[in-house]
Amino acid sequence: MATRSFWGWGYEEAAFDDQQIGQLRQLVGMQFGKAELTCQAPPLLSDLTIPEPRLTPPDSLASIISTERRDRANHTYGKSFRDIVRGLNGDYRCAPDMIARPSTEQELIDVLDYASRQGAAVIPYGGGSSVVGGTEPRYEGNWSGTVTVDMERFNRLLEVDHQSRAAHIEGGIYGPALEDGLRAHGLTLRHFPQSFEFSTLGGWIATRSGGHFASLYTHIDDLLESMRVLTPRGAVESRRLPGSGAGPSPDRMFLGSEGALGFVTSAWVRLQHRPVHRLTRAVHFDDFLEGAEAVRRISQSGLFPTNCRLIDAREAMMNGVGTGSKHLLILGFESADHPLEPWMNRALDIAMEAGGEVQTSKEKNPNEHGQAGDWRNQFIRAPYMRDALIRLGLVAETFETAITWDKFEDFHAGVMDRVRKVTREVCGGAFVTCRFTHIYPDGPAPYYTVIAPGRRGDQVKQWDEIKQACMETLIDLGGTITHHHAVGRDHRPGYDRQRPELFAEVLRATKKTLDPEGMMNPSVLI
Amino acid sequence: MATRSFWGWGYEEAAFDDQQIGQLRQLVGMQFGKAELTCQAPPLLSDLTIPEPRLTPPDSLASIISTERRDRANHTYGKSFRDIVRGLNGDYRCAPDMIARPSTEQELIDVLDYASRQGAAVIPYGGGSSVVGGTEPRYEGNWSGTVTVDMERFNRLLEVDHQSRAAHIEGGIYGPALEDGLRAHGLTLRHFPQSFEFSTLGGWIATRSGGHFASLYTHIDDLLESMRVLTPRGAVESRRLPGSGAGPSPDRMFLGSEGALGFVTSAWVRLQHRPVHRLTRAVHFDDFLEGAEAVRRISQSGLFPTNCRLIDAREAMMNGVGTGSKHLLILGFESADHPLEPWMNRALDIAMEAGGEVQTSKEKNPNEHGQAGDWRNQFIRAPYMRDALIRLGLVAETFETAITWDKFEDFHAGVMDRVRKVTREVCGGAFVTCRFTHIYPDGPAPYYTVIAPGRRGDQVKQWDEIKQACMETLIDLGGTITHHHAVGRDHRPGYDRQRPELFAEVLRATKKTLDPEGMMNPSVLI
Repeated sequence: MATRSFWGWGYEEAAFDDQQIGQLRQLVGMQFGKAELTCQAPPLLSDLTIPEPRLTPPDSLASIISTERRDRANHTYGKSFRDIVRGLNGDYRCAPDMIARPSTEQELIDVLDYASRQGAAVIPYGGGSSVVGGTEPRYEGNWSGTVTVDMERFNRLLEVDHQSRAAHIEGGIYGPALEDGLRAHGLTLRHFPQSFEFSTLGGWIATRSGGHFASLYTHIDDLLESMRVLTPRGAVESRRLPGSGAGPSPDRMFLGSEGALGFVTSAWVRLQHRPVHRLTRAVHFDDFLEGAEAVRRISQSGLFPTNCRLIDAREAMMNGVGTGSKHLLILGFESADHPLEPWMNRALDIAMEAGGEVQTSKEKNPNEHGQAGDWRNQFIRAPYMRDALIRLGLVAETFETAITWDKFEDFHAGVMDRVRKVTREVCGGAFVTCRFTHIYPDGPAPYYTVIAPGRRGDQVKQWDEIKQACMETLIDLGGTITHHHAVGRDHRPGYDRQRPELFAEVLRATKKTLDPEGMMNPSVLI
Repeated sequence: MATRSFWGWGYEEAAFDDQQIGQLRQLVGMQFGKAELTCQAPPLLSDLTIPEPRLTPPDSLASIISTERRDRANHTYGKSFRDIVRGLNGDYRCAPDMIARPSTEQELIDVLDYASRQGAAVIPYGGGSSVVGGTEPRYEGNWSGTVTVDMERFNRLLEVDHQSRAAHIEGGIYGPALEDGLRAHGLTLRHFPQSFEFSTLGGWIATRSGGHFASLYTHIDDLLESMRVLTPRGAVESRRLPGSGAGPSPDRMFLGSEGALGFVTSAWVRLQHRPVHRLTRAVHFDDFLEGAEAVRRISQSGLFPTNCRLIDAREAMMNGVGTGSKHLLILGFESADHPLEPWMNRALDIAMEAGGEVQTSKEKNPNEHGQAGDWRNQFIRAPYMRDALIRLGLVAETFETAITWDKFEDFHAGVMDRVRKVTREVCGGAFVTCRFTHIYPDGPAPYYTVIAPGRRGDQVKQWDEIKQACMETLIDLGGTITHHHAVGRDHRPGYDRQRPELFAEVLRATKKTLDPEGMMNPSVLI
């Protein structure tokens, strides 16, 4: 069985090997001549700086609580750049004191009661793939310790309703197990965030996760039919309904609550039949803004592509597709019901009208072959590559947002400009690229990747400076601080500027109602 | 210029005339042999029972406040059955004491300040088309009077963003004025609730209005890009964003807040280009459940028809389409971008596979002619017909819900059974029909119409008994108390059962935060 990496992404066995790191070193070396490209070895468990646990599991909970060193290290950080760097450096000073693994709501209540008696903070934990410090024990307030509650034992597919294409599933289930369970029924949730392999249904709901499809049913918000949340005050369960206009939606208060109000113990989710018709095509653009214009028109056409991913030329090259001179639009349609030629043909027409050059693809299965397929495989491997880049001493991180089309051109220019400036100041230069992850009739969700030469020992500080500038720019120029990465602890400064102040008061009142002691994931959102 | 009816729907000039009432009398007489079918004359303004206003407008607000008799009568009720009956009977005992018509946020603040000083309740008022007592001055608490705030002067189209297809519009604008303004730009909000002519953007948002299209972008929830709400504590304005994952959505807290938290002073809404491609076809079914099965499969096909309205045989007949032996499915597609034959052909295939018989239509414009067109015209006229039925002494009302497909068959049977029983007990029988107003991949929104012989003077009591039974049945059988009519005062008993108790506490805390005196639309929601 594969071993989860405590400092990096995914499985230790899947990390870049020496040969791959060698190739990467060469590639990056060409880009940043000056960068120091020695490769930092992953830390040994025995070398970590990790304090003794401040809490001792009570006998009654001993069977579901662990204070084991590796377990605590594993649950300290998410998977952001600053998490990986600190992990690589063996810095686990803020490790949680214990990891609880309840498998029933009663056990969850017992853990909450225990934490309450101890005056400990409680951090709900799904797959640990947060890139915004969402599960890191870093908070204000006078807490005796941290109980991180790993929901992995809430992993059952409880019921499948074929007629409504819906399923009742526990919140701690991981992506692959969820899809395996549904595959047996010919169904799929079809929600594939990049973290899919290492994230959970409850985590997706708590963070308003975005799947990797471009339009329509891709956000977990829209795939949620009803949910059950266990708060410190008790359970809140909404009704299974296809639609309802009965007052403000209770679900929408918990979607995005990021563990600050309670645990998603189960949810009814909307499924789809597994697609049997698929078309994927690639379109090239000489000008990124022409590509954006094509995407705008497609997003407003009512065709609803499952993929409409505009990737700028440098990012395409970085991912091994293209030579860096052409911007790439990957256009895909999927259906379980009907052939898609009329949809694809019209979308390609629109792309060509906007100046695109449609690539001919002779491959049989474009999801596995061709530029579109190449890119997809890289997408899945990207977090492993980032770990390798970090080991090579680089600053490598992403940030994402959304903006209306009318502002996009200036916004994008402003963001690129600011990022180039700040990375020049902080790192002496950077590789900055952009793609669209999601599209809407009223705007795209641009996703930026920053790769820059770092200074060993200063990488976190360097990124924090860059991140601060990015956050300010996103907010100043009218974007959102996060489109699908959530707020966590890292985005709080931007979020606090973006959120209407009276709504912040509403959230505080909500928190006080459901979590009067404020023990749930302190310092997140509120 | 046409005169708004103070007791009935829409314009006085558009009400059924004597000849139309005669025809209706004949039709209904055949159905209910025993019913007393004299026609009650509309009340004269001079005959109304309406108390003297308890509040006197201060000089500073005299220019925007009216205490005029007709104005107060006009703002007393919404347009539910029990509203029309009470209006016809001249019972205006709960009339608001004054009507304020601010045209700026400052004037709105002045009105709120005045009401606060007076200890008066404040009722936000859009088009007054509520069918759930949403704007009726009927509440608990010790208030010195009621200031109903008619938002009609917040009626400007402020800005149009063609690139993002969005517009910034004030909350008090009526449907037709909004569409007239957008038509000049080749755009449309394409939100057409049955109340369209007599309802406002702010009202739609406050009540989570459903447009008359069947699938995808039809709910105002999804058409809203951002909004500005003036609460007694101040303004809350969200950012214009195509999508955002930054914490729980502020907009979703105000969508469905029904005037209990504040006024929607303006909103950015998502628009569409005006459709140029349109296809409409009618399909007949011998069995209503076969029709439902066709709709289920279409709803899960990813074709997203703009119309997919299943109308049971009796309702189709009542609307002058068909002989009462066949159930009617109206299937429509619209696009501003592409011809729709592949979409329609596949949808018709699905309908036929489920047992439907596709009707040939030789008419050029199926929106104006043919069974589909006939039905649409009747739909617009329906509220006028209901007024006429009520004048003829009938009990005539609708209720609506949503339910997942797995439960639909039993649910529908249970609802029909209960309604038939209770109407037999209360009225000696009834004409009960059903149609689907909206469809989702996981379930339909069934809409029921009840027409029964009433007893003059007892009609409200009769309906209240029937409504009570309907509400209990909807909730007992797992439906929602309202899919798009809102909660108001009339649905509170069902809503209180449906809503998770801890979420009710959250709403109370939210209300206390934004409206500490509890003056906004008291007894609604909270």
